[in-house]
Amino acid sequence: MPADQPPAVVLLSGGMDSATTLAIAREAGFAAHALSFRYGQRHAVELAAAHTVASTLGAASHRIVTIDLGQFGGSALTADLAVPKDRPPAELADGVPVTYVPARNTIFLAFALAHAEVLGARDIFIGVTAVDYSGYPDCRPEFIRAFETAGRLGTRLAGLTIHAPLIDLGKDAIIARGLALGVDYGVTRSCYDPDAAGAACGRCDACQLRLAGFRRLGLEDPAPYG
Amino acid sequence: MPADQPPAVVLLSGGMDSATTLAIAREAGFAAHALSFRYGQRHAVELAAAHTVASTLGAASHRIVTIDLGQFGGSALTADLAVPKDRPPAELADGVPVTYVPARNTIFLAFALAHAEVLGARDIFIGVTAVDYSGYPDCRPEFIRAFETAGRLGTRLAGLTIHAPLIDLGKDAIIARGLALGVDYGVTRSCYDPDAAGAACGRCDACQLRLAGFRRLGLEDPAPYG
Repeated sequence: MPADQPPAVVLLSGGMDSATTLAIAREAGFAAHALSFRYGQRHAVELAAAHTVASTLGAASHRIVTIDLGQFGGSALTADLAVPKDRPPAELADGVPVTYVPARNTIFLAFALAHAEVLGARDIFIGVTAVDYSGYPDCRPEFIRAFETAGRLGTRLAGLTIHAPLIDLGKDAIIARGLALGVDYGVTRSCYDPDAAGAACGRCDACQLRLAGFRRLGLEDPAPYG
Repeated sequence: MPADQPPAVVLLSGGMDSATTLAIAREAGFAAHALSFRYGQRHAVELAAAHTVASTLGAASHRIVTIDLGQFGGSALTADLAVPKDRPPAELADGVPVTYVPARNTIFLAFALAHAEVLGARDIFIGVTAVDYSGYPDCRPEFIRAFETAGRLGTRLAGLTIHAPLIDLGKDAIIARGLALGVDYGVTRSCYDPDAAGAACGRCDACQLRLAGFRRLGLEDPAPYG
């Protein structure tokens, strides 16, 4: 890639939203330094997906940071609570579900900030969306803006910008955008509770939102379902 | 301790500032859940000090979270840079030194936020001070307030308060306050570069600031120096 591309840190989970965000950062001309986390999630298959996504979309680097979120408990994604299945669409928008991981995006953004400061990157990308989402408080635009302010004050990155390019997009719009940028959604993984072979369950909140997005576009999700 | 004490998370490094902060949180009537980090610091002896401080000051719990800050590099506290010694006092207040760890307090506060949310604690204590300090941007009051705002918006803790009770205190005032609350500074460790036996160097910025504080009070620092 050209040497004059400014560096940016891109949070990359291996799901469809962060893959699309990485493609957007690349198209905007950034050298994208992808950052993923091994945080005790039961769906660690997403890290293998993140690796594939980072290389196919031309990330400048990809780091996986191991953090011990599971020791605090309090979430179905890291602790021994059941992942809810087949929730009706109306319920998805209602309240904070048990799959919420306390302060997860705050922690992810804090690490992204450290990485950005060392790289001298003034741009961080995160694929949160406040439209077809699971009701997590740390996906709201006012949180992203507040964290950006904290990041500017707490580092030497006074010009920091936190980009959340999907914040106003529904899943169908995200998919359409990503397809236009060449994202292969067949290698992304969104499921909260995949089987041992990595196939998605098709029934958790994340699968339902994703499948509905493809359906609204009249497309089939290319990812494997069990 | 009485069952009706509200929980608070207290960031505890094992140094004199965080020990004093823990004593202040206890005196204010909180059940103090202490949180320390193994982050690749070269002065890991402070974790043993944190353990002693937590138990002698009656913390309700003490957790040590391992995080991988060293992999980002960029600091003399985690990477292979030399810790500056014998810097003249005027220089200590000038610019961001190489011992600054990028975004460290942001990361520590993010974990404290996760811990607080799971505990249902609406109070977090951090022992930053903007008076006799090393010029780190993440010790400034405006950063603390901005992070508090982000924490309120990014979690279910709308009533969150981040207490920084030392923010306006010089080292001498911190020591006087702690002594009044029964803090044994002989078990705290502040040095950035202790010897193998855990004795302080007496010459890094942290030692210089600490020693000057005791000197201004006409007291001798009870911690061991090499």
